[in-house]
Amino acid sequence: MKFTAYILDVLTDSVYPARITIADGIFKEIVPIHVTEETKIDVDGLIVPGFIDSHIHIESSMMTPAQFAKVAVRHGTTAVVCDPHEIANVCGIEGVEFMIENASTVPFNFYFAAPSCVPATAFETSGAKLDSEDIEYLLKKPEMVALAEMMNYPGVIGADNEVLSKLKIARMYKKPIDGHAPLVSGKDLDKYIEQGIVTDHECSNFKEAIEKKQKGMKIMVRDGSSAKNMEALFDFSQRIEHYKNQDSFGIIPNEVLSRRLHSPIFDFIVSDDKNPKDLLNGHLNESVKKAVDLGIDLIKAIEMVTINPAAHYDLDGGSIVTGSQADFVIIDNLHDFNILKTYIAGECVFDGENVLFDVEDVEFENTINADKKSHADFDICFDGDECEVNVIECIDGDLLTKKSTAKLAVKDGIVQPDIFQDVLKISVVERYGSNNVANAFIKGFGLKKGAMASSISHDSHNIVVVGYSSEMMAEAVNRVIDNRGGIAVVSEDFEDSLSLPIAGLMSNEDGHDIAKKLTILQKMASALGCKLTAPFMTMAFMSLLVIPSLKLSDRGLFDGDNFEFIDVIRN
Amino acid sequence: MKFTAYILDVLTDSVYPARITIADGIFKEIVPIHVTEETKIDVDGLIVPGFIDSHIHIESSMMTPAQFAKVAVRHGTTAVVCDPHEIANVCGIEGVEFMIENASTVPFNFYFAAPSCVPATAFETSGAKLDSEDIEYLLKKPEMVALAEMMNYPGVIGADNEVLSKLKIARMYKKPIDGHAPLVSGKDLDKYIEQGIVTDHECSNFKEAIEKKQKGMKIMVRDGSSAKNMEALFDFSQRIEHYKNQDSFGIIPNEVLSRRLHSPIFDFIVSDDKNPKDLLNGHLNESVKKAVDLGIDLIKAIEMVTINPAAHYDLDGGSIVTGSQADFVIIDNLHDFNILKTYIAGECVFDGENVLFDVEDVEFENTINADKKSHADFDICFDGDECEVNVIECIDGDLLTKKSTAKLAVKDGIVQPDIFQDVLKISVVERYGSNNVANAFIKGFGLKKGAMASSISHDSHNIVVVGYSSEMMAEAVNRVIDNRGGIAVVSEDFEDSLSLPIAGLMSNEDGHDIAKKLTILQKMASALGCKLTAPFMTMAFMSLLVIPSLKLSDRGLFDGDNFEFIDVIRN
Repeated sequence: MKFTAYILDVLTDSVYPARITIADGIFKEIVPIHVTEETKIDVDGLIVPGFIDSHIHIESSMMTPAQFAKVAVRHGTTAVVCDPHEIANVCGIEGVEFMIENASTVPFNFYFAAPSCVPATAFETSGAKLDSEDIEYLLKKPEMVALAEMMNYPGVIGADNEVLSKLKIARMYKKPIDGHAPLVSGKDLDKYIEQGIVTDHECSNFKEAIEKKQKGMKIMVRDGSSAKNMEALFDFSQRIEHYKNQDSFGIIPNEVLSRRLHSPIFDFIVSDDKNPKDLLNGHLNESVKKAVDLGIDLIKAIEMVTINPAAHYDLDGGSIVTGSQADFVIIDNLHDFNILKTYIAGECVFDGENVLFDVEDVEFENTINADKKSHADFDICFDGDECEVNVIECIDGDLLTKKSTAKLAVKDGIVQPDIFQDVLKISVVERYGSNNVANAFIKGFGLKKGAMASSISHDSHNIVVVGYSSEMMAEAVNRVIDNRGGIAVVSEDFEDSLSLPIAGLMSNEDGHDIAKKLTILQKMASALGCKLTAPFMTMAFMSLLVIPSLKLSDRGLFDGDNFEFIDVIRN
Repeated sequence: MKFTAYILDVLTDSVYPARITIADGIFKEIVPIHVTEETKIDVDGLIVPGFIDSHIHIESSMMTPAQFAKVAVRHGTTAVVCDPHEIANVCGIEGVEFMIENASTVPFNFYFAAPSCVPATAFETSGAKLDSEDIEYLLKKPEMVALAEMMNYPGVIGADNEVLSKLKIARMYKKPIDGHAPLVSGKDLDKYIEQGIVTDHECSNFKEAIEKKQKGMKIMVRDGSSAKNMEALFDFSQRIEHYKNQDSFGIIPNEVLSRRLHSPIFDFIVSDDKNPKDLLNGHLNESVKKAVDLGIDLIKAIEMVTINPAAHYDLDGGSIVTGSQADFVIIDNLHDFNILKTYIAGECVFDGENVLFDVEDVEFENTINADKKSHADFDICFDGDECEVNVIECIDGDLLTKKSTAKLAVKDGIVQPDIFQDVLKISVVERYGSNNVANAFIKGFGLKKGAMASSISHDSHNIVVVGYSSEMMAEAVNRVIDNRGGIAVVSEDFEDSLSLPIAGLMSNEDGHDIAKKLTILQKMASALGCKLTAPFMTMAFMSLLVIPSLKLSDRGLFDGDNFEFIDVIRN
């Protein structure tokens, strides 16, 4: 394939016209040309490198890797560094190997990071554990480009042997180590970084990100479904303050500072998690546009999803150079940034209308090992008329929760949820054979009746359920069990569910079908009174103990600030 | 050590005040502080990371590594990546090990690159050869951070087995490979880069540098004694043309372009070679100032000698972060850029007046193995009255030479040099035991009488001599032999010499004494009519065959464009 086009060159931050020859999947020759009035430029628009998401959990899309790729190429994404730690929590190395195998069936660049924290903590029951030997086994695979996010920051800071041993193996294999250290700062952060952990994607405020950057970390600005940190991290007034006000002596000349105000300061834009609907609407293409709207230099924003991740993880691609794999996107212009076509290894995979490859269904053994539940499993008992309880308070659009309390009535020895205070029941049902159920209370969901349940509950993916009545909660959980995993919404009036039979996390359906069903389920949740923007996503994170402050595992209520269990009932 | 200071942070391109704690040679803690009127800032000026020269041949300073360090720290240099290929050409691995050993005697960060091309070509006699096994032996050493400049670009392009094998070993050991590919472009350059060669420091014009950069190389902008490419590579009008005129559709918005005009585009500033006098006057500190004068963004220029090389070669230092070795410089301000103090591993090594460490003399075996010469050794014979000869035409301040010709008289069967045409004689005297002498003609030196000789002659370091009379040439060479190496200037009226007994390249003397003696020798050369700015440096490069166009080895006159020997006499 030979053609002339304008290239966006992320190596010199410029645009130049060139004659491009592609063969055997790589850029064979790129020769800059001199454009005169007679020169025919074959490509309308501009050639930019394919976009790379350097931190994503594919499982959050509820699609198989192959189905994920089919949606992602529409947005100009040509590569992802994915951390398959959701499926690893369910089925360990076999799950990781399933992802790698399935990824290999489509023309898309899947790179993998070895899940470092399976299970995420010792305070929950997962389907598998990955110890340091497993990590070594995984890091030897050619698909593995990194050790994935080290979420166990207390373990790093406290010098836990097994944690340090995993980090050591990654350093030994010269694989970059990704971090996950929300709100960690000062000396604790120093200790965390000292272990060779070089990235962080958990920064939720500018000062946090600057501290980490100034300590040498590379910062992933997250713009996903479950967390959106771009507005905070690209805040213009904070950039001004950063560059100008700290420098009270006026050491840096003004003309230099004024150029700096458009600097992204940080390194990558990542999604971390993309739910099916959001992924259908856009991926890094939309994030880049958003960054530019926030005042970030256009080309620097593009570099955050092309050359920066490619250089950091030593990936093929990321720039349009001779000898590199021919992964590129044709966009209309730098303002509208519409994806006209996507090419991977020199082949057109999206022609502006259709995705030009097929995806096959996969078989997967049932991973839900739990008995059917009854209402009694979800009751919290107390001897008295009233009691004070600890309540998880969720925040719409945030993974963090607040610690709250409530006074609740007790009826027939069972503590009652209270719709007027919006205090509902939340339970985590162990689904790996022990049949244990942990119950607690939650604020912020707004359900007036019914229940919703899901086998997506980070990171161990037990079945999480939120509801007002124990009966409905049992009903919802049983529906999930029948479906071999998935999401269910039930009430006295209606019920529906999405089946996710692949590890209880993913479906064979394509993105549109999954999104359509999710929309129905979400409308049902709204009809039941739920006010959350993404109720299932929020519910899924209520069991992620590594993000503070109050969460619930299958073993009980967990204080993420002090990393210990606490009682539901306070008196 | 604890103090407060303003830090120039090359990770966020900003300045911030902090309380710094240093212990065990590293930054133990760096805590940003809020400055009020009462806050005492202990350090007047600004803390910047120590400067790193990512490509230098220490031997060109004629100082031992330890003596070099003593001068360099005065200019804020705290680390160098040095390629000991001069001494390697003389004494092989033993020479490299001598450099490493001597470097370890002073508090300075010497990193080494394994010399890839010893000898530089098969067209000359060197004192040693380093084959791929030797390279593997060297790359295993912890001091070795790279494979040094691959000068044998014809060997790479032509897929020479031994060359490819060295490159493969470097890739296997995951060591970055430095390049050296003057004026190589197009498909040849593609082939060169394909082998994993990632840097180039030979760019002498903007277009050359842009092509290499656009093909994915990192560009070292050279600002040394023998080559100064900064003016060409940082040319403002070429930057404008690059960013603006190529983009004839106006694809990149104007406000983005205007910020780009201050971008260095390229990656590092290096010196490559620093002669003693230049090194006494300044090092990277002066280069950064010069870059800023050429319109380059101040902080980006500093990054080219700090974080950029540290990141590329995976060196400790390069930024002021917790956990990093405490290498830093206190400068007065970003405008004057005067070095007030230099610290390495937390210790003050230069206090603004004195260097605070001592250097010991070293013993070195005589490496000059050549019999004394007589005038007949330097005669070029021809049977006739006149003949046309090929003439090396040197260019002041450039390593490149031109191919020239001249008509010369023949007297008593001996071709006569011609002062009026400025055509002198040049000879290379083998000094490793074979006693061979190669004779040719040269233009550009301007000597009216006498001769100058030196055992510094790249890269094999045979003895090179330029002069008018064969008698004087023999005299100068014999003086160098007596001195176990060095530089000599002789004439009928006066003579003097600098002894360089360490491999014929270096002296135990300190920088000032060497520079003083060199100044005297240079004045003597001027008195003899030489018009070159740096006559000994220029002479030393007349035997460097890998840089075109016409050079002289101990085996004869060499056409660097076609990589073959040619006859001195044309008819």
